[in-house]
Amino acid sequence: MNVSRPGVLPQGADSLARYRSLLEPALREAVGALHPWGARMAAFTLGWSDVDGSPRQGGVGKGVRPALVMLSAEAVGGSAESALPGAVAVELVHAFSLAHDDIIDRDELRRHRAALWKAYGVGPALLTGDALLALAVGQLAGRPEAMPYLSAALMELVQGQTADMAFENRPWRGPGEVTVDEYAEMAAGKTGGLLGAAAAAGVALGGAPELAGRMWDMGRDLGVAFQIADDILGIWGDPRLTGKPVHSDLRREKKTLPVLAALAGGGPAARELSDLLVSGVDGEESVRHAAHLVEAAGGRAGAEDLAQRYVTAALGVLDECLPDAADLRALCGSLVHRAS
Amino acid sequence: MNVSRPGVLPQGADSLARYRSLLEPALREAVGALHPWGARMAAFTLGWSDVDGSPRQGGVGKGVRPALVMLSAEAVGGSAESALPGAVAVELVHAFSLAHDDIIDRDELRRHRAALWKAYGVGPALLTGDALLALAVGQLAGRPEAMPYLSAALMELVQGQTADMAFENRPWRGPGEVTVDEYAEMAAGKTGGLLGAAAAAGVALGGAPELAGRMWDMGRDLGVAFQIADDILGIWGDPRLTGKPVHSDLRREKKTLPVLAALAGGGPAARELSDLLVSGVDGEESVRHAAHLVEAAGGRAGAEDLAQRYVTAALGVLDECLPDAADLRALCGSLVHRAS
Repeated sequence: MNVSRPGVLPQGADSLARYRSLLEPALREAVGALHPWGARMAAFTLGWSDVDGSPRQGGVGKGVRPALVMLSAEAVGGSAESALPGAVAVELVHAFSLAHDDIIDRDELRRHRAALWKAYGVGPALLTGDALLALAVGQLAGRPEAMPYLSAALMELVQGQTADMAFENRPWRGPGEVTVDEYAEMAAGKTGGLLGAAAAAGVALGGAPELAGRMWDMGRDLGVAFQIADDILGIWGDPRLTGKPVHSDLRREKKTLPVLAALAGGGPAARELSDLLVSGVDGEESVRHAAHLVEAAGGRAGAEDLAQRYVTAALGVLDECLPDAADLRALCGSLVHRAS
Repeated sequence: MNVSRPGVLPQGADSLARYRSLLEPALREAVGALHPWGARMAAFTLGWSDVDGSPRQGGVGKGVRPALVMLSAEAVGGSAESALPGAVAVELVHAFSLAHDDIIDRDELRRHRAALWKAYGVGPALLTGDALLALAVGQLAGRPEAMPYLSAALMELVQGQTADMAFENRPWRGPGEVTVDEYAEMAAGKTGGLLGAAAAAGVALGGAPELAGRMWDMGRDLGVAFQIADDILGIWGDPRLTGKPVHSDLRREKKTLPVLAALAGGGPAARELSDLLVSGVDGEESVRHAAHLVEAAGGRAGAEDLAQRYVTAALGVLDECLPDAADLRALCGSLVHRAS
């Protein structure tokens, strides 16, 4: 399996362009309601401007989440426009979570640029994250068919992020080691909740609230796959695409799925990896060797298999609920796709 | 006017005890849904436990906001219990805002104890704040008669906090100086939004959603008065009650209403105060002298008058909409009450 950057459709990114062009004016209108200083920081973190406020080409990421909302609405016969409040809301929650995550993880770079807190300070960045979240909630506050899914996603997001943070204090082996199942639960929360909310809010706003529960489950499965794909990129991804140094998650000794799957496999490479992790990964050579051991112990293949299983489960739900939704299926399938 | 700690009823705090005893189990149940680590930090910040997790007497503050929700519900013939989700939500949003504000302002103490970030670190405290907010939203996500007010309060809260932060970079005099009107707008957002949401959600959940808009306005006026009372305490409050050093807001050169009202008054004391603030308040003697000048220039009396005008406006709305709601009126009036 060849894992692309999550969110790039196999046939190129253009199939999302229509949804991005619907999203952007609505997103700009929402952000325009902020205090001018807050709006400036929000525009920076959304990629619309530089630190000094001057406009910038580019902007918001691939827009996978809002596209998922609008495609889901269209799949049940609604219009993409009818689902715009949901699309804006999930994109804002995503931006909120990145702003806060970078503070929590002390990540100085985001999408090849300064992280929000690095550009404006921790306090202002924290407050901007809160503002983005407040705007998101405002989009759906009067829509009881969709709001509970956004709310559930928020809850899952913080629970998953807390679990991920708690993993850092747990041992690599022995009692208290992190299991693959615990990892999947964390990923379903941290990454799956918002994808679940996107799909559920999309069908609910599109006119089929009775499908929202199934779509929530579908999105959560998709999220586990998405997170695993991100973990694979965090170790073997091309720095030019990821914007992070190669092997960055190994340098930070993060408990990611490839490493946990490698350790769970047993065998000589797994034992050597375990010893290395317990003694501490330190220096370029050590990091490279750890990456080699993760692969030799079957961690990469195991991660790819598990991601594929979650995607298959998600697509199975789609095929059952919305058998004619080819574009939606293509988007979901593309999150972790086989190139060969 | 003799300003007490906001939230203490003139006839003693016991009149809120009934509402606190209704609130606490519901609040504990909500917090119990968090990841154990998050629940522990939430319990600390709500005053239920010490840093190490051991139980502690005391707990949540006076509970003015949840009492306002429940009293508003009762005032329209609903039960206090019917409004519990709203009461829990506003208390959680309040706790969220304190956790984040202390990070933003680098305040190390809160209610005579370590601030959450000081006890557990910035990242965990930030995330706990997010978790409290997520729980709050979850309380009302399926209640479209109340959720829009909570959402509006969130928005006002971040806008007011941003304005307050932006005040710090503005001059004490000349073009760009902060006016009393700008201050009132900031306070209406930062403090009034949540009181507005409390009153509005209370009547909406109690069965009179048609009154919610007026109650929102009432609560916002009340919030301005509440904030001014807090500002007065921030300069002249008893450290044993406020938990902060005397004159603390003057030491930090905060643009609070008493100071702005003093400067706006003109006259010799105002001019001397202005010179002192521009050159910088530094040292015990200078702080004491600044406090004296604020009072001599009429800043304290002006602040008390303005607070009273906002309370009077708020009570006027109450008298018009809910003329028989004596307990609700007593609570609202007590936020800034005349002791003489």
